[in-house]
Amino acid sequence: MNDATTTTADLKARVLAFARERDWEQFHAPKNLSMALAAEAAELMEHFLWVTPEASREVAVDPAKRAKIAEELADIVIYALEFANITELDVATIIGAKMEANAKKYPVEKSRGRAEKYTEL
Amino acid sequence: MNDATTTTADLKARVLAFARERDWEQFHAPKNLSMALAAEAAELMEHFLWVTPEASREVAVDPAKRAKIAEELADIVIYALEFANITELDVATIIGAKMEANAKKYPVEKSRGRAEKYTEL
Amino acid sequence: MNDATTTTADLKARVLAFARERDWEQFHAPKNLSMALAAEAAELMEHFLWVTPEASREVAVDPAKRAKIAEELADIVIYALEFANITELDVATIIGAKMEANAKKYPVEKSRGRAEKYTEL
Amino acid sequence: MNDATTTTADLKARVLAFARERDWEQFHAPKNLSMALAAEAAELMEHFLWVTPEASREVAVDPAKRAKIAEELADIVIYALEFANITELDVATIIGAKMEANAKKYPVEKSRGRAEKYTEL
Repeated sequence: MNDATTTTADLKARVLAFARERDWEQFHAPKNLSMALAAEAAELMEHFLWVTPEASREVAVDPAKRAKIAEELADIVIYALEFANITELDVATIIGAKMEANAKKYPVEKSRGRAEKYTEL
Repeated sequence: MNDATTTTADLKARVLAFARERDWEQFHAPKNLSMALAAEAAELMEHFLWVTPEASREVAVDPAKRAKIAEELADIVIYALEFANITELDVATIIGAKMEANAKKYPVEKSRGRAEKYTEL
Repeated sequence: MNDATTTTADLKARVLAFARERDWEQFHAPKNLSMALAAEAAELMEHFLWVTPEASREVAVDPAKRAKIAEELADIVIYALEFANITELDVATIIGAKMEANAKKYPVEKSRGRAEKYTEL
Repeated sequence: MNDATTTTADLKARVLAFARERDWEQFHAPKNLSMALAAEAAELMEHFLWVTPEASREVAVDPAKRAKIAEELADIVIYALEFANITELDVATIIGAKMEANAKKYPVEKSRGRAEKYTEL
């Protein structure tokens, strides 16, 4: 299983099967999954709390930390996919729609090299 | 573009192209992306703050809210994929590894229908 | 030191002295403190991920968990006070102002017993 | 009302009165309050997503942003105080205890000028 050959549907099916086998769908209400997502995102963030953004690039490739960081990222995507399973959202479709909307908010010529929010461009 | 036919590599490439076109990779340090992920996860959570988990299942299919919820979920996955791009992590691989580890921590017979953490099973 | 006799200024001074003794103000940029705050809030949340709101009332008084929950809450307030120290905000003043604004957004007669956001009342 | 003269008990009483007047204690389960806290912490963080820690010091005193930042911080402290109200925790006491524990984990001579976690000192 790798990114080049795995579809989002494959990943979603694997996550759903795991939950079903354990009869965990009863706990996977959108409220609870959104909390779990936020909690995992915070765990990822904890690796970078006190370093500068530049230094965080080194942290992410530090062999002593990379495995743990990969696990936190995996947890985030797993919960996001399970949220999509439970709410019957098609991830590729909503990403496509969001990126089209973002392209309008952030036209290349106005936003190149700038980090401001679209309301401040 | 839909989940059945879109690979994770396709999605990652699309997200990366968007950032590159705008010369935004300079802002996409792991520290900053982890903050953006946590911020988007919090926005998703805000839809469910004061309702019960059961009621949150209704919120998620409420036509008045569904589009907004889909956007928040899309934002989360977009930042997760960009984090994987920047740190050169293969999402399908790390999900596979994490789910194998989870399967050991949560054997079906011990965890069926139970929400306790593996340390409390 | 207890809530009846301790002023916010006392607490802020104690937190600031701790940071200064360790020469930690250099790390306490608003960006970093806001991340630490969000990370601690997520740790508090983790105690309640899979239970209902009603059941979470029991969790909070469970002797086995209460000490840990108290620590997470303490961390949140410590970082909030340090954020106020660094940005020179008067906590009591901004709380007073925010609660006056909230009182206008949520008049008693319109919001009694209702959890909707003021924009939906 | 200002930090020099306001006790934590004063602030807690004010927050509790606001909730009681609106019959909101029914919504203020620890689970829900911890989510609200995390959501507000994320809103504070959003002001600093793409800037460096150093630049975030400027953002926090920017007159155009300061009022909004103060509101987010107020929200965080309000929810933390309400969490303490609902769970009957004495904030000054738990902060005192946490800071004593922190002083042991981070002795001045070992931690001066260093941002590492105590497990890595």
